[in-house]
Amino acid sequence: MIDRFKLDQGGAVRVREALLRRTVAEIFRKMGVPDGDSDLAADVLVTSDLRGVDTHGVSDMVRLYVEEYRSGQTNPRPNWRILRETPATASIDSDTGLGIIVTPKAMAIAIEKARNVGVGIVTISNGRHLGMASYHAMLALEHDMIGTCMTSGPPAVVPTFGLEPRLGTNPIAIAVPAESEPPFVLDIAMSAIAAGKITVARRTGRDIPPGSIADENGTPVMKAAPAPELGQDALSVLRLLPLGSTRELGSHKGFGLAAMVDVLAGVLTGGGYGAVPGPPNFGHYVAAYSVEAFMDTGQFKQTMDEWLRMLKSTAPAAGHDRVLYPGLAEAETQADRRANGVPLHPEVIGWFRDICTELSVPFTLTEGQPQMT
Amino acid sequence: MIDRFKLDQGGAVRVREALLRRTVAEIFRKMGVPDGDSDLAADVLVTSDLRGVDTHGVSDMVRLYVEEYRSGQTNPRPNWRILRETPATASIDSDTGLGIIVTPKAMAIAIEKARNVGVGIVTISNGRHLGMASYHAMLALEHDMIGTCMTSGPPAVVPTFGLEPRLGTNPIAIAVPAESEPPFVLDIAMSAIAAGKITVARRTGRDIPPGSIADENGTPVMKAAPAPELGQDALSVLRLLPLGSTRELGSHKGFGLAAMVDVLAGVLTGGGYGAVPGPPNFGHYVAAYSVEAFMDTGQFKQTMDEWLRMLKSTAPAAGHDRVLYPGLAEAETQADRRANGVPLHPEVIGWFRDICTELSVPFTLTEGQPQMT
Repeated sequence: MIDRFKLDQGGAVRVREALLRRTVAEIFRKMGVPDGDSDLAADVLVTSDLRGVDTHGVSDMVRLYVEEYRSGQTNPRPNWRILRETPATASIDSDTGLGIIVTPKAMAIAIEKARNVGVGIVTISNGRHLGMASYHAMLALEHDMIGTCMTSGPPAVVPTFGLEPRLGTNPIAIAVPAESEPPFVLDIAMSAIAAGKITVARRTGRDIPPGSIADENGTPVMKAAPAPELGQDALSVLRLLPLGSTRELGSHKGFGLAAMVDVLAGVLTGGGYGAVPGPPNFGHYVAAYSVEAFMDTGQFKQTMDEWLRMLKSTAPAAGHDRVLYPGLAEAETQADRRANGVPLHPEVIGWFRDICTELSVPFTLTEGQPQMT
Repeated sequence: MIDRFKLDQGGAVRVREALLRRTVAEIFRKMGVPDGDSDLAADVLVTSDLRGVDTHGVSDMVRLYVEEYRSGQTNPRPNWRILRETPATASIDSDTGLGIIVTPKAMAIAIEKARNVGVGIVTISNGRHLGMASYHAMLALEHDMIGTCMTSGPPAVVPTFGLEPRLGTNPIAIAVPAESEPPFVLDIAMSAIAAGKITVARRTGRDIPPGSIADENGTPVMKAAPAPELGQDALSVLRLLPLGSTRELGSHKGFGLAAMVDVLAGVLTGGGYGAVPGPPNFGHYVAAYSVEAFMDTGQFKQTMDEWLRMLKSTAPAAGHDRVLYPGLAEAETQADRRANGVPLHPEVIGWFRDICTELSVPFTLTEGQPQMT
C-alpha cells in the first residue's frame, strides 16, 4: 500500500488520469481480460485514486490483481451467470471473475430492476476482490437512484470477547444523489481501522493507533503500539477489532454490522461466507433504490442539498476547522487530481515501468510534464 | 428508564407476561386506541421486555406514550395512507400515529411485496416513536424472510469534529431466520451508547463510560465521568458521540452510518429528517427480503445455523466465558422471562397502580404469585 503520509511529504510523481487509465487497461488486456472489461477495471482503479482512496487504487491493486490472474485464482474471462431471478432480485455466480469487473454489471442489473419495480438487489457468489465499494454504489447516482454495496471477505476481525478472527472487514458503501452539492458517499469497513494501515505502520516503523487490534489473548490493545509481525498471509493471523474497539465503547455494534454484511453479501449469495470457503473467495451485494419510487426526485435532491449543507455547516469542535460529510473530501480530492494528476510513489512508478517492460506495454506514465509535488 | 443493574440486585417484582399484556393493552384502549391496535402496542412493548430490551419496554415507554397521547402530539386513530407505491416499494404518511402501531402494518406491506417481487421496502413519514426496532424486523422471520428496520430521530449525536448534535441515535435492526438456532437479531443505535444510559447514570449517581459524550467544546470525553446535567428536554442539549467515539477510533464511521439512516428513514420518506422538522417527528424504514428469491430457503437456514454456531464457538478472549452473536442473549432472556415473568421495578409497579386507578383499569399485575427476585 502506498503511504499517503510520505506522498504528502513530497517525492510523489503526479500522473495524468488519461495516461494512468491507458496503462492500467493495457496491463489488464495482457492478462487476457477482454477490451471492455479492461477499460472498466481501469476506471474502477483510477476512480479510486482520483477520490483519494489510494488503498484501493492502482498502487497496490494492479500488482495484486496481476498476481491473482497469473496464479489462476481469478478468471480473466468469467462465464458469470444469473442463477435465480425475480422482478426485484438476482443471484449471480461470478465464476471467480474479479469483483471490480463483475460487480458493475450486477449493479446495472439492479438499476434496471429498480427502474421497473422500485428496487433492485443483486448478490454475487464465487467472487474475487471488490475494489472500492463506493464505485459500484455510485453507479446509481446518474440514474437518480441510491446505490449500496457490501462485500463479505475472509476473516480478519475478532468478535467482541473473541480470540479468533471470524469476519472480514466487510465494508458498507452507500451513494445518494443531491442537486448541486457533492453526493453523499459513505464507504467504510466494519473494523476499527483498515487492514492496510497495519501494513503501512509495519513498513514505516510507526505505531498503530489505540483500539485497532486485539493482542494474542484477545484483549483489545488500547494504547498506540508497534504493528505486530505477521506471517505471509497477514489476514490469517491479524486480529482486527470491530468498529467500537471494546465492549464498553460499543464493539458489539461493529461486530454486529460486520456480521450483517457476512449474511447479506455472504450467506444470502448461496456461495458461503467470509470464513467458509475463506480466501480467496468474496461475496458481494449491490442494491439500487429508485428515488422516484418513493417520492418526487426533484424534491428529494433539493432536500439532500439542504441536509448536506446542514451537516457541513455544523459548528466545529475546539481545534477543528470544519465538519466533513462522507464524500465531501473525496469530491475535493477528485477535483484536484483530475486537474493536477494522481500522485504516485516513485516505487509504484518503478513497478509500472518493470511490468510494462515485461508485458511489452509502452510505458507512458511519465509522459508530458510529470510534476514533482 | 428502568435500572437493570438494580433489578439484578433484587427488589424487582416478576410479572407474568399475560397480565402485563392485558394491562398495557387496556391502558392504550383508554387513550382512544382501537382494540386491535392496543393489543399490537402491548405485544411490541411486552416483547421488548421479554427479550431484555428494557429501555424500550413497558417501564418507560407506556408512560411516555400516555403523555404523548394526552398532549395530542400522537394520534390514537391515525388515518395513515400510502402516498406512492411500486411493486417493490411504498411510501406511507402515518398521520402522526405511534410507530409501534403503524410500523408493523408497513412491514406487512413490505412482506407482501417481497413475496410478489422478491423484496419490499416501505418508508414512513410523520411518524412517532418506533419502539424496539428489531420487533418490526423480526416480523419477517416467520415468512422465511430477512427483515430490516431503521428510524431517523431528533438530533442527539454530534458529527465527527462537530460541536452541535445533528443526527438522531438512528438505530439499525436486522433479523435473519435460521433453522434451529435462535435467529440472528441485531438492534443497535449508531451512537456509542444509548441516550437512556445517561439518564440512568444521572439518576443513580454513577459515572457514564468513556467515549459516550462530547464536552461543551465538542471534545470527546474519553474518561469515565459524571453524567452531565441537562435541561428538561434531554435530547436537545445532549452531545452523544457516534459509534467509534473519536476520529482515531473510527467515529466518522458511526457518524456516516447515522447519516445513512437519516437519509433512508428520513429524507427518502419525503417528510423531512432528524433535524427538520425535529421533535416529536420520526421517520421509519422497513424492508423484507424473501430468502427464496435469492436461493433455496432450506439451504439458507442450514447455512445460517452453521454460521451462528461458528460465531458462538469462537474461542473467547482472556477473561471471558463465551462469544455471543446478536440475538442470542435476547433469546435466552426471552425463555427465562416467558417462564418466570418480566422483572419490574417497584417504582414501575407503583406507576401502573396509579395509572390504572386513574383510568379505571383493573390493576392485576401482581395477581397470582408475584415472585421477588
